Amino acid sequence: MSERFYAGIDMGGTNTAIGIVDEEGNVVARCSISTCRYGNLKDYADALYEATEKLSEEIGGMEKISAVGIGAPNANRDGEIACCQNLPWEMPAPLAAVVRQRFGIPVAVDNDANASAAGEMIYGAARGMKNFITITLGTGVGSGIVCDGNIIRGHRGMGGELGHITVRRDNARSCTCGKDGCLEAYCSASAVARTAREWLAENPERESLLRSLPSESITSLDVYEAAMKGDSLSKEIFDFTGEILGEALADFMNISDPEAFVLFGGLARSGELLMEPVRDSFRRHLMPLWRRYETKILVSTLPGADAAILGAAALATRKNG
Amino acid sequence: MSERFYAGIDMGGTNTAIGIVDEEGNVVARCSISTCRYGNLKDYADALYEATEKLSEEIGGMEKISAVGIGAPNANRDGEIACCQNLPWEMPAPLAAVVRQRFGIPVAVDNDANASAAGEMIYGAARGMKNFITITLGTGVGSGIVCDGNIIRGHRGMGGELGHITVRRDNARSCTCGKDGCLEAYCSASAVARTAREWLAENPERESLLRSLPSESITSLDVYEAAMKGDSLSKEIFDFTGEILGEALADFMNISDPEAFVLFGGLARSGELLMEPVRDSFRRHLMPLWRRYETKILVSTLPGADAAILGAAALATRKNG
Repeated sequence: MSERFYAGIDMGGTNTAIGIVDEEGNVVARCSISTCRYGNLKDYADALYEATEKLSEEIGGMEKISAVGIGAPNANRDGEIACCQNLPWEMPAPLAAVVRQRFGIPVAVDNDANASAAGEMIYGAARGMKNFITITLGTGVGSGIVCDGNIIRGHRGMGGELGHITVRRDNARSCTCGKDGCLEAYCSASAVARTAREWLAENPERESLLRSLPSESITSLDVYEAAMKGDSLSKEIFDFTGEILGEALADFMNISDPEAFVLFGGLARSGELLMEPVRDSFRRHLMPLWRRYETKILVSTLPGADAAILGAAALATRKNG
Repeated sequence: MSERFYAGIDMGGTNTAIGIVDEEGNVVARCSISTCRYGNLKDYADALYEATEKLSEEIGGMEKISAVGIGAPNANRDGEIACCQNLPWEMPAPLAAVVRQRFGIPVAVDNDANASAAGEMIYGAARGMKNFITITLGTGVGSGIVCDGNIIRGHRGMGGELGHITVRRDNARSCTCGKDGCLEAYCSASAVARTAREWLAENPERESLLRSLPSESITSLDVYEAAMKGDSLSKEIFDFTGEILGEALADFMNISDPEAFVLFGGLARSGELLMEPVRDSFRRHLMPLWRRYETKILVSTLPGADAAILGAAALATRKNG
């Protein structure tokens, strides 16, 4: 049995998942608490401690836990949460400092995208790599750039956000960030659903299994399932999404010369439906100089349900040699 | 007088400039030797040593030099030159190792773009900054990304090359790299001349001072001089170039959250002719989230003639605590 454990805490605006992770990356115990029911940060930290202490009975007590890692929305480089609409706490909330005080052991806090990158580096598809880029294809598009083993944060801690790189300039889609043409507006899970709605509306004569669903309720999972049943419109949506993602990844080579890209999130579980057009487009859009090197495009191997806990725990391992 | 000096060596395919730099960033002695006349790397290292030894008489001898920095074309992260068409040496050439052996002191080798970034950080416009991006607007577009004080190199040492990020996808210009639509194809000094040639050909009725020059010989300096004389076509060429550069810089914010961009190279000396449209476009294309922060767009303050020597010397300072 592992002698050293980490607490990995995935803080969401509504709920917080807590896991105890051994040195091999197994989540040996897990639970969750509410995030938003606590009126202030101190009460939340107390609740975290209480829940973790209970979990730690599985491994012989709190003294077996070396460090705490927390993946939190909008966390800045000082371990503070800059803002979170769901929480009534005073902002910025000094999460790292308050949890460190309560637990009495080292605490690492980072935003979700960077935690995800740390998880891939310590436990996942990028294990042993020092240079890679993670792309999370969820509601939005998150990313983490790891260079020489360090996660790129930048001056205000807001670096490594490739979801808002412009991929289309003419007749570009508006993005939720307020800009037009962002990668997120084309290649997130929400964007796949948006493409479906747009194409169905623009091509009223075109048959599709998706027509049996109310347009506004279509999700990327619906498009995936229709494509797997042979629906040609849905397949073309994945081709379109993969084409743009492959173009973007080819460009990202020039940023940090990664050994691999690791794709994560709901849409990344679409298998070859997405990966084939991504790889094909990546190859076609690569600068010729890069073509002599192999750059891997991998799908995350972290178990979906525990990935965020493992990412948070991976942050903790870095606090502890 | 400074007690510690560095040798800064700017190796070009034809000539090599050598300078001795004090701790304040003054080039106190300089000379140059031929690069390509030496049939092998060892003879070249001997010539470097001999020339540096002679220069060191100015400061009291070789023992005053703490370390050597070399900016070299296509240098990889192991201090080797991967390839250079001008040189008859066996490739890859282990430049750092051979020079270190000859000089008997620490040697740092990096490519020109990264040396330039180091120069800005130690002696130039980015002094004291830990997060910035340098963009060199010369024959091509080079760049250096500095994050938390480290220059981004990546897996094969080829990171931080933003000149080949795609900025136009529809009807895009071909770039010398073999890809289409690169920043370099629109915003390098050569690209400014190319824009002039294209626009003159496409608008035969349009008057311009540039029409007095043979089209093929037009340089970016010609366009600059015409614009300064009030030539409207030439001004529009700078507006066009600045618009695209500003778009690109706005996107680059998302990569590494820099505190500043530092523009360098011939075209960066165009003053407000270029900087005004760059800043205007940058502001318009920024993700709204970034607008609350001030990000500086600076022009390098390093003296043009010595900038490459200072960049190389800056690499050396990092070898020496």
